[in-house]
Amino acid sequence: MILSATPSLCSLIPNAQTAALRQAKKILLISLFILAANADAFAQKFERIEPMFWFTGMHNPKLQLLVHGDNIAISTVTLSYPGVKLVKVNKVENPNYLFLDLELSTAVKAGTFPINFTAKGKKIFSYNYELKNRDKSAGRIQGVTQKDFIYLLMPDRFSNGDKSNDVVQGLTETALNRDSMYYRHGGDIQGVVNHLDYLKDLGITTVWMTPEVENDMPRASYHGYAVTDHYKIDPRYGTNESYKKYVETVHAKGMKVIKDIVHNHIGTGHWFYKDLPMKNWLNQWPTYTQTSYRDQTVMDPHASAADRKQMLDGWFVPSMPDLNQTNPYVQNYLTQNHIWWIEYAGIDGLRLDTYPYNDPIYMSDWALKLQAEFPHLSVFGETLVNAVANQAFFTGGNTVNRGFDTHLQGITDATLKDAMYEAINGKNGWTDGVNRMYATLAHDFLYKNPNTNCIFLDNHDMSRFYSMVGEDFDKYKEGMALLLTMRGIPQMYYGTEILMKNFSNPDGLIRSDFPGGWDGDKKDKFTADGRTNKENEAFNFVKTLANFRKNSPALQTGKLMQYVPQDDIYVYFRYNADAKGTVMVVVNNTEKDKNLNTNRFAEQIKNSTSARNVISNERMDVKAFKVPAKTTLVLELN
Amino acid sequence: MILSATPSLCSLIPNAQTAALRQAKKILLISLFILAANADAFAQKFERIEPMFWFTGMHNPKLQLLVHGDNIAISTVTLSYPGVKLVKVNKVENPNYLFLDLELSTAVKAGTFPINFTAKGKKIFSYNYELKNRDKSAGRIQGVTQKDFIYLLMPDRFSNGDKSNDVVQGLTETALNRDSMYYRHGGDIQGVVNHLDYLKDLGITTVWMTPEVENDMPRASYHGYAVTDHYKIDPRYGTNESYKKYVETVHAKGMKVIKDIVHNHIGTGHWFYKDLPMKNWLNQWPTYTQTSYRDQTVMDPHASAADRKQMLDGWFVPSMPDLNQTNPYVQNYLTQNHIWWIEYAGIDGLRLDTYPYNDPIYMSDWALKLQAEFPHLSVFGETLVNAVANQAFFTGGNTVNRGFDTHLQGITDATLKDAMYEAINGKNGWTDGVNRMYATLAHDFLYKNPNTNCIFLDNHDMSRFYSMVGEDFDKYKEGMALLLTMRGIPQMYYGTEILMKNFSNPDGLIRSDFPGGWDGDKKDKFTADGRTNKENEAFNFVKTLANFRKNSPALQTGKLMQYVPQDDIYVYFRYNADAKGTVMVVVNNTEKDKNLNTNRFAEQIKNSTSARNVISNERMDVKAFKVPAKTTLVLELN
Repeated sequence: MILSATPSLCSLIPNAQTAALRQAKKILLISLFILAANADAFAQKFERIEPMFWFTGMHNPKLQLLVHGDNIAISTVTLSYPGVKLVKVNKVENPNYLFLDLELSTAVKAGTFPINFTAKGKKIFSYNYELKNRDKSAGRIQGVTQKDFIYLLMPDRFSNGDKSNDVVQGLTETALNRDSMYYRHGGDIQGVVNHLDYLKDLGITTVWMTPEVENDMPRASYHGYAVTDHYKIDPRYGTNESYKKYVETVHAKGMKVIKDIVHNHIGTGHWFYKDLPMKNWLNQWPTYTQTSYRDQTVMDPHASAADRKQMLDGWFVPSMPDLNQTNPYVQNYLTQNHIWWIEYAGIDGLRLDTYPYNDPIYMSDWALKLQAEFPHLSVFGETLVNAVANQAFFTGGNTVNRGFDTHLQGITDATLKDAMYEAINGKNGWTDGVNRMYATLAHDFLYKNPNTNCIFLDNHDMSRFYSMVGEDFDKYKEGMALLLTMRGIPQMYYGTEILMKNFSNPDGLIRSDFPGGWDGDKKDKFTADGRTNKENEAFNFVKTLANFRKNSPALQTGKLMQYVPQDDIYVYFRYNADAKGTVMVVVNNTEKDKNLNTNRFAEQIKNSTSARNVISNERMDVKAFKVPAKTTLVLELN
Repeated sequence: MILSATPSLCSLIPNAQTAALRQAKKILLISLFILAANADAFAQKFERIEPMFWFTGMHNPKLQLLVHGDNIAISTVTLSYPGVKLVKVNKVENPNYLFLDLELSTAVKAGTFPINFTAKGKKIFSYNYELKNRDKSAGRIQGVTQKDFIYLLMPDRFSNGDKSNDVVQGLTETALNRDSMYYRHGGDIQGVVNHLDYLKDLGITTVWMTPEVENDMPRASYHGYAVTDHYKIDPRYGTNESYKKYVETVHAKGMKVIKDIVHNHIGTGHWFYKDLPMKNWLNQWPTYTQTSYRDQTVMDPHASAADRKQMLDGWFVPSMPDLNQTNPYVQNYLTQNHIWWIEYAGIDGLRLDTYPYNDPIYMSDWALKLQAEFPHLSVFGETLVNAVANQAFFTGGNTVNRGFDTHLQGITDATLKDAMYEAINGKNGWTDGVNRMYATLAHDFLYKNPNTNCIFLDNHDMSRFYSMVGEDFDKYKEGMALLLTMRGIPQMYYGTEILMKNFSNPDGLIRSDFPGGWDGDKKDKFTADGRTNKENEAFNFVKTLANFRKNSPALQTGKLMQYVPQDDIYVYFRYNADAKGTVMVVVNNTEKDKNLNTNRFAEQIKNSTSARNVISNERMDVKAFKVPAKTTLVLELN
């Protein structure tokens, strides 16, 4: 008789992260196994199987299980369950790993079955593997569209909803220090849950947190991009279960969730970095080699293989080992992990970190596999590049990427961000100021669908918007009005609605705590009373436009028409051919009031004679009107 | 019996341009017709048929003849010639025009036949129309490739080879004034013919003149873009026959000819502007409306119809009426004119002025028609735009222009020009200096074939290169070495080889006469003796590289490989996989000498250990070497 290592026991084991505790647990397990299986001298220490469980009814019948345990490779593996076939047991360079190729029939039923590991003819242990039914409930995995407004936050810095997880024993970094930007501050998932009503009131429809999975790194890992366990929410933020519950709560409020995932790299604290399955699990170099950060090497027809390799395989930073996405085991591991999270928690969209640094062929295959499983899922890749053509190169269905399709739905529109700043801060010239914004949007012909781009004015890697416009409140409003009326899916960085400021260099203050997110904070800026008048004005400006969006078919689903700027005035429209409520946006970025005659916009204005100023709620004549200096007017035509 | 208006007589008539002379000729003709045809009161003044003659064996069997004459529309037209069918006689708004649709059989033979015009049952006159055999001689219509080096000159400003045509009576502008940039200076085709050996010695393979056809405008028409007769070389430059002879002479020297043509507009002095066939022969506006010069309106998916119309149909300047290329008569007129010139003179390539301002659908059809007649002809469009994507949009076979192909072979590469200036004059930064050039070339993925682009550092509309680099001779050499080794077809503006300078504004001095081009010039810079030492050094620098190009397979037909700039050094290679003689170009645009280790260029350097410095002819070790400050090294690998 065999004592199974049950999933619940196994899933505990990865939690033991300090060397001492891990060792103790291993000894316990070994004892159990020896006791149960009467094992011989080939004592094996079983560590984990990933994915820990899987789902029935997936589009892809294949499943590759990673098994990690001391000398596990000497095992013979057997299983028996209707509709599950063990196709192949793969041994790799490191005997502590096995990769099990399973094939699931379309008819396979939910349930558990033991996977048996035998050494020298004797069963050592077994793992009760579970297949769960897919959750087909409404309101899960909805996708994100132009109808949405995304709020990007860093969970460590938004609100501390659960003090019990501020410091978690067993993790490498134990200090909590809100006075340093590089330490943990204690924010968590519960803190976000506690403020969902605040966000909903503001007009936010979608929450994007920087990665929530474990980052067990010695310092400055609060950002989340140095993953150390792909299958575990960082215990300082919560648990897998609380994350799933958070998604359900967001959905219950009619909102959506984006998960931030990282294909390119891990943290040096990752459990498998300490015991690599094989040398080429990572991109290895004779000496440390950094990526060139030059996306051009991927698209340039004149690029050298050496430059392309350095871009794709070079490491982002020394503390973030670079995964080798041409390794089929790595490919399966990552793809399954993402599918697992989406199906498990019901996530609506993914943001892909450092997209251009990933192997293009793998990423294309990845996108197809995700689409096959989740037709409504939204995906956008981070592309911090310097031209629309470069951004478009990475998008699916573009026409520029000859004979190759990334199948990537959208990107973070850094070029439009630059153009919006130029429209706000720049001096108008043939290619500058509002003309830059006009010309940038004209390049939308390079995309299959620019409306799936995530548009933004700031994020966790950038100086904050309010600082970037020199704390000029007029410019702040100009920019927020652009963001909330332009084509694409708008995203705002947490705190921008209350005029949080600071520059990305040198002090990291752009990642300051949201005031009021911690018990005892002097000001609670989640409430009107806690905000200054100006902060309330900013909050209400964003709230007014964000809530207007929700009821404006032109902004929700409309097309864009833009006009060549004339007399320093830039005008665009959002419209639906068959619907009323065309939105006219008029940008005057100069220091002077301007009079605008609207004759040349007849295609859009048609028979309208008046309009409503969405911010002031005033009615006005639309034939000719004054556009105040430094103003983006948002008008709803009648 | 009918007296035919013979072609030779007819071809004389358009020469009569002053009102008085024209009137006199008309009276003469009328007299002849009355005498010959015993015509009744419907006296008709025959002015012209265009094309004046045509060719057998054309791919397109259709030919549309424009007939212009007083009240010509009352005529009945007949003709009889084997293989020629008069399909339709088209009357238009203006009774002074008829458009005859002819169809030529594939078997039609060369010869002449009368086209008879009858009024009230009586023949008024006839025109002996000639069909010539196509000239299939070798060395005609060769096309221009990367093997070539184009010399752009303004015929009025290069050399006066025939003083007898300096002032031509009957033209509107009669003054010759070399002291003013806006008057005629007297240069001509014979002046170019006289200096073909100079150009050949310099390494030039191809001559491009600004338009040579008649520009009979009251002032400043020396540039050639205000055409007043599509079928006649400006008599101040020569005759149709001397132009044809010039092309033959160029070909006999193993060189080529590009003709500069204008689809978009004409000059207000054009004969048909004074008596329009129909109102919509031109793009007419209620009040004068200028183009916006915004190419984006053509490609922007968000553009308004109004903005697009203003770009395409707005006039370039008041003195240049805008042809309506959606009018099928205009389409036939222009397309046939260009085919006529190529077949008549044997031209190797066309430069299309103001390409983005033309009707896109017509231009696509035009390109196909030209290709069908002349498979080897080269064509490049002037696209003075601000991004590679915009340029690429206009090129044939690009992938960005959804569902539409311009079939345009190449463009004038303004974006690469800007990038080369940035590499020479700019300060290196992530996107600046040499990195701009690198990033610009990386965008070549947007083209089907960037090698057909015409690349340049200056032209007749720009400040001269030597002035643009602050008359810094090191920078001059940096730039000329880039121009002569980069992918594409290099073009140089006349006089840049002898350091001619000046800025495009405000005085027009960029169009100064080439010293020595006129009898009595103080200096003759066509000769080494007439040039200063520095001018000779410049001349010899260009000559060395231009002649090296002629014998370098890597530059003539090779691919480009470029490397990400490192340590402010930008390196690219031109190479053929199967040929020796890879060319390595190393750009150091800084003020400091740099040491370069070439390990990272192993893909190109392969087993080469030494190289030849093409300028100094010195041999050098290629493993590591010094790159002097402000230098573009051109190395031929062994």
